[in-house]
Amino acid sequence: MKNFLSVKDVSNVDQLVELARSYKTNPLKDQKLGANKRLGLLFFNPSLRTRVSTQIAAKNLGMDAIVLNVGSEGWSLEFAEGAVMNGTSVEHIKDAAPILGAYFDVLAIRTFPKFQNREDDQNEQVMNAFLKYAKVPIVSLESATLHPLQSLADIITMTEHFTEKRKPKVVLTWAPHIKAIPHCVGNSFAEWVNAWGKADFVIAQPKGYELSPKYTAGAEITHDQKSALDGADFVYVKNWSSFERYGEVLGEFPEWMLTEKSFQTVKNTSAKVMHCLPLRRNVELSDEILDGPRSILTELAKNRVWSAQAVLSEVLRG
Amino acid sequence: MKNFLSVKDVSNVDQLVELARSYKTNPLKDQKLGANKRLGLLFFNPSLRTRVSTQIAAKNLGMDAIVLNVGSEGWSLEFAEGAVMNGTSVEHIKDAAPILGAYFDVLAIRTFPKFQNREDDQNEQVMNAFLKYAKVPIVSLESATLHPLQSLADIITMTEHFTEKRKPKVVLTWAPHIKAIPHCVGNSFAEWVNAWGKADFVIAQPKGYELSPKYTAGAEITHDQKSALDGADFVYVKNWSSFERYGEVLGEFPEWMLTEKSFQTVKNTSAKVMHCLPLRRNVELSDEILDGPRSILTELAKNRVWSAQAVLSEVLRG
Amino acid sequence: MKNFLSVKDVSNVDQLVELARSYKTNPLKDQKLGANKRLGLLFFNPSLRTRVSTQIAAKNLGMDAIVLNVGSEGWSLEFAEGAVMNGTSVEHIKDAAPILGAYFDVLAIRTFPKFQNREDDQNEQVMNAFLKYAKVPIVSLESATLHPLQSLADIITMTEHFTEKRKPKVVLTWAPHIKAIPHCVGNSFAEWVNAWGKADFVIAQPKGYELSPKYTAGAEITHDQKSALDGADFVYVKNWSSFERYGEVLGEFPEWMLTEKSFQTVKNTSAKVMHCLPLRRNVELSDEILDGPRSILTELAKNRVWSAQAVLSEVLRG
Repeated sequence: MKNFLSVKDVSNVDQLVELARSYKTNPLKDQKLGANKRLGLLFFNPSLRTRVSTQIAAKNLGMDAIVLNVGSEGWSLEFAEGAVMNGTSVEHIKDAAPILGAYFDVLAIRTFPKFQNREDDQNEQVMNAFLKYAKVPIVSLESATLHPLQSLADIITMTEHFTEKRKPKVVLTWAPHIKAIPHCVGNSFAEWVNAWGKADFVIAQPKGYELSPKYTAGAEITHDQKSALDGADFVYVKNWSSFERYGEVLGEFPEWMLTEKSFQTVKNTSAKVMHCLPLRRNVELSDEILDGPRSILTELAKNRVWSAQAVLSEVLRG
Repeated sequence: MKNFLSVKDVSNVDQLVELARSYKTNPLKDQKLGANKRLGLLFFNPSLRTRVSTQIAAKNLGMDAIVLNVGSEGWSLEFAEGAVMNGTSVEHIKDAAPILGAYFDVLAIRTFPKFQNREDDQNEQVMNAFLKYAKVPIVSLESATLHPLQSLADIITMTEHFTEKRKPKVVLTWAPHIKAIPHCVGNSFAEWVNAWGKADFVIAQPKGYELSPKYTAGAEITHDQKSALDGADFVYVKNWSSFERYGEVLGEFPEWMLTEKSFQTVKNTSAKVMHCLPLRRNVELSDEILDGPRSILTELAKNRVWSAQAVLSEVLRG
Repeated sequence: MKNFLSVKDVSNVDQLVELARSYKTNPLKDQKLGANKRLGLLFFNPSLRTRVSTQIAAKNLGMDAIVLNVGSEGWSLEFAEGAVMNGTSVEHIKDAAPILGAYFDVLAIRTFPKFQNREDDQNEQVMNAFLKYAKVPIVSLESATLHPLQSLADIITMTEHFTEKRKPKVVLTWAPHIKAIPHCVGNSFAEWVNAWGKADFVIAQPKGYELSPKYTAGAEITHDQKSALDGADFVYVKNWSSFERYGEVLGEFPEWMLTEKSFQTVKNTSAKVMHCLPLRRNVELSDEILDGPRSILTELAKNRVWSAQAVLSEVLRG
């Protein structure tokens, strides 16, 4: 694997899942793979789970990981070609990236959408500039549009939990929130489940909250959460802002909060519930779901380590 | 040792002191004890000495330590059961703690009192929530009410310095400060000296600054610093705000600043002076004390490494 | 080497350059030199390249490096002898430094000038206080007046690039900027090139921007950038504020921006261009220079690792 920015960098999702599961069984089996290799973790935006799970994954592979919280230190980068840098940007990506590429064997980068302009976010300015100028493998720790390490952990978790012969019904449902949230987790989950190809996939959201067809094409799209939950094996809960009216919150839609009652109306007793965390209790989904047997959230978060370890190992193998 | 939140988690103070001193002699003797074990250091409040000494201790035991400055990154946790999280809290402790418990073998946590409500601070909300939900050993790096790693270093230092057969006279004296300071160091020192049981223990403070009897019971309590210093072998200097009028500063009391003159009036030439640091020179105690032969502050701070190493090793042994 | 604060701590510049180049060829050849030794990296001011390159250098030598971002955490130190600490300073250097010296085998420190008073900055208050009280080797990661690790990398890079028998012509030229910049890089480059003694050395700046003769004595000083560039083999570009009118910006002088045209007027086709980074494109120097064959900036930044490794290894050897 040359880089890891989306599922498109993965030749075989199932093989990557199996590799991750083999690390879960034996975390230190490739401890020499990353010996004397350095991973740079660049955070333009805050991170807790992603940072820790990736550091653990690197360590399991014998890599040395160095964290750079570039966002909080106000390291304002310039991206415009030909810019006269007499403003607030202190360094051009063309000067910064080659040096980080020289210091590190792999760069793992987190950056959020700016929500100022849809095209800018869609163009993945930060990731693409590092790809172009750093000249070492780039691993996304969440970008302006996608969160592939999360999605791989999602697929790992569903693979572990579903052993029947038939295809599982997988539902991605929009949930309420109190502020404008990026599309990354929703986009990426859709793209991965579609690429995986092993599920009957339904995406439910209020009208106006449809995700970009670039990622969802292949899934059934509905505005009816109830019908989506009917027969669901896995329900992935996530808020996102409008893509059409980019970054806007179109309404509260409190009836979309996932509760035990949501399942009872369709007599679904077995569906497992997932969320990438962090989450707003009793806004996105209810205590009874989170504290009950449906929740596989902690297991999912644990799988972030094996997701990162599988990806880093494939990147180290080249 | 299952957790380390107070002296109550210690079965034998002297044995723990001896273990710490054995690490001081031979820091790397248990370098395999922590192999492939991870320590998560969670700082809800800033730390310098505690952070570095605990990182060194972990490294000496072969553990991998990862620091999370959760406070400065504004990771606002919700603790209330049943909360509708439509406010400023971004994650519930019930969701966050189990994952940190899955990522780490031991969690070491620093959190200060909020000084909003005495009962809330006394209830040690943060520590107890991690104890309940993280399901791995918890080590206090200072909590709302106690600072046990500091107190263990205090006992180690007194043990090293006092080799006479008789009991030493140990004095904890209140000192002036310019702002409201937590009770943790004072409470914890009192609790440990009482549990240690090897000292004649006197606590001196101005009227209204009495610490909670929960920790001080067993010590002689006085408002007369002069009589306390008479015959003292060790004088521990520390400010704290009022416990009765919780968190209030009742007055400046500059005459409580410890100076060489304080000792001369009682002809005490041999007493050693301790402070947990950081300290306000010429407010809490004078330059002449700090720069003279009475001060054992640097030795005490060095012992923080062996204090942390002894505790981590006992927690690793289970 | 006992400490590393300036070129004065170096007995032989060429030998140090050769040591650095030997590490570039074989980074891990001294991996046991720093075993069980700890490097404390204290940042009173932000750092990216310096921090990462020094961490890598320490790791290559088998040292454990711990980063303390003391500046961003508001750890305000008191330096005045006899201070009554009833203000904003929370700890005196006399109390803090001995403990850091006890926790670490080597302390590497970054601190910028305050620009409040020239004498205070010239006196290197922070570095000298750590030297006096920490009692372990001190390595400058940039101080109020100098940046010796950068200068060593500068000399390494020129040594690599210049293999002719004659002396190279080395030019340090002032460049425009949008704010008041310290003199450290300019001072230090001048001091090192003078100590190196292997170049014809010219320093060019607008009138009023002369650096302190303490560092520049021995170089030719001119206000004519054009004549300086004539025949130059290496051109080091850097802004600094006025030293005479300490810390002031005396004017914009946009004609001092280094461009390809600057070279063409003197028919210089071969000069290589250097800058310590970060830099303001099209303010200090132009895109065409930075993106063309003259630029050896990335190579220079890479050499920061070997510069730090050579210095740390010499400090470890004592």
